Amino acid sequence: MSLELISKNKVHGGWHKRYRHESAVNNCTMTFAIYLPPGVDESQRAPVLYWLSGLTCNDENFMQKAAAFKSAAELGLIIVAADTSPRGEQVADDKEGAYDFGLGAGFYVNATQAPYDQHYQMYDYINEELPALINEHFPVSGKQSISGHSMGGHGALVLGLRNSDKFASISAFAPIASPTRCPWGEKALTGYLGNDKQTWREYDSSLLLAETNAEQCPPLLISQGLADDFLQQQLKPELLQASADEAGIALILEQHPGYDHSYFFISSFIDQHLRFHAKHLA
Amino acid sequence: MSLELISKNKVHGGWHKRYRHESAVNNCTMTFAIYLPPGVDESQRAPVLYWLSGLTCNDENFMQKAAAFKSAAELGLIIVAADTSPRGEQVADDKEGAYDFGLGAGFYVNATQAPYDQHYQMYDYINEELPALINEHFPVSGKQSISGHSMGGHGALVLGLRNSDKFASISAFAPIASPTRCPWGEKALTGYLGNDKQTWREYDSSLLLAETNAEQCPPLLISQGLADDFLQQQLKPELLQASADEAGIALILEQHPGYDHSYFFISSFIDQHLRFHAKHLA
Repeated sequence: MSLELISKNKVHGGWHKRYRHESAVNNCTMTFAIYLPPGVDESQRAPVLYWLSGLTCNDENFMQKAAAFKSAAELGLIIVAADTSPRGEQVADDKEGAYDFGLGAGFYVNATQAPYDQHYQMYDYINEELPALINEHFPVSGKQSISGHSMGGHGALVLGLRNSDKFASISAFAPIASPTRCPWGEKALTGYLGNDKQTWREYDSSLLLAETNAEQCPPLLISQGLADDFLQQQLKPELLQASADEAGIALILEQHPGYDHSYFFISSFIDQHLRFHAKHLA
Repeated sequence: MSLELISKNKVHGGWHKRYRHESAVNNCTMTFAIYLPPGVDESQRAPVLYWLSGLTCNDENFMQKAAAFKSAAELGLIIVAADTSPRGEQVADDKEGAYDFGLGAGFYVNATQAPYDQHYQMYDYINEELPALINEHFPVSGKQSISGHSMGGHGALVLGLRNSDKFASISAFAPIASPTRCPWGEKALTGYLGNDKQTWREYDSSLLLAETNAEQCPPLLISQGLADDFLQQQLKPELLQASADEAGIALILEQHPGYDHSYFFISSFIDQHLRFHAKHLA
């Protein structure tokens, strides 16, 4: 598969690059961004952290606002930031153009409902197609971890828990912890998967975590701001905690007074998350 | 003068806040952003770094993209990010809506030409009105420095050199080093100041630097990316260097291969600039 370079910027001695490519899985053109730390090449390969962004975002938000490059450069981490949905004029959007469904809101599921099933296959895209591209074109070590924010935190947890053999560690900032039990999730799962709630379960990290074998579960770090406007109605990290307790899994759930849902929060704790992943990717 | 809080975000233990206020100098409503590092209050006052942004920017770009908060928190620096022009429907813009004149492009001058003289008094705004507001409402120590990017680097150098008693140190990223001798500057100075080029001289940092007394010049740090698309035609740091040499001033001009004009460049070297200022503000 071929990549088209859109732009590149040197940052903290490495390179931030944006690429465009044809996605067979999503049946459209997709864009992603990658950070390559200094010194990485064919003879010095690096592990990859996949980053999944939240509602309304694309590949740019994390790269511009997360303040991750200094630590990524020091730790020798490649970071790949994916887009949050298929894109293009032919891609069906929310019928009313809402921010929480359709474009910018793919929820990292494989849609089964028309017309969304034509393009919204973000689970397979993140799990298979994008890593295959990265592995083909960049000097990766083969080890990978996953993280994300809000809807992307949900995506990181679901992808990580369902593919625990692939990911050395999982983290999330303010994830939608149980999309089967919050308004954002209920709307998205109904629209993409239909009304049979049994099909929703494989995209609910709290339900998945309760059934996860503790010995096979990758290390888990969650950071949550306590001044986050979405905490009680949409995010519900207590459901993840309850599942972790039930399964005997040592979830690290850090709660930070005063912090909100923004990238100001992410940028305050991204260094901690990168160190967490680097330790498990070593 | 009163301030209206627009928003606040906790970040690296401190607070990013945006405020709106009526500006007597610019005859309109202005917006600025401030970072207050942790632990700052009436009994523990902090020095202030004023940040001036470049063309098309407002108070948000630096705060979202510069990755400055971790170091600012550690160093105990307040950072104030100003807007780049007066704002509002009544404020005259470039007649063709260009990005390099009018709204978002005040060039930190006091305009003398109609209709721009009604609102475009950014030099006095940054030099007098904004610091008076900051000093009235926030726990500042009284010491201050100034920095900026591109058009804002020009602004920082001009403000700093013309008010060397007020600023402990001056720095700039990719400044427009001599606006009397580049297309961006020639357009702006003609529009705001008219055709008498004698009036332009007080807004040209390279010309000002050549006439600066070395013993009274604040410490100067300039960072320039060598892959900056604007380097040769618009920025011309060699003119600053020549003036510094002429005046016997120890300008620190760091040139960085591969870096461009973006915030990816700024974020790579902002820690160095903050440490530079903190040393001179101590």
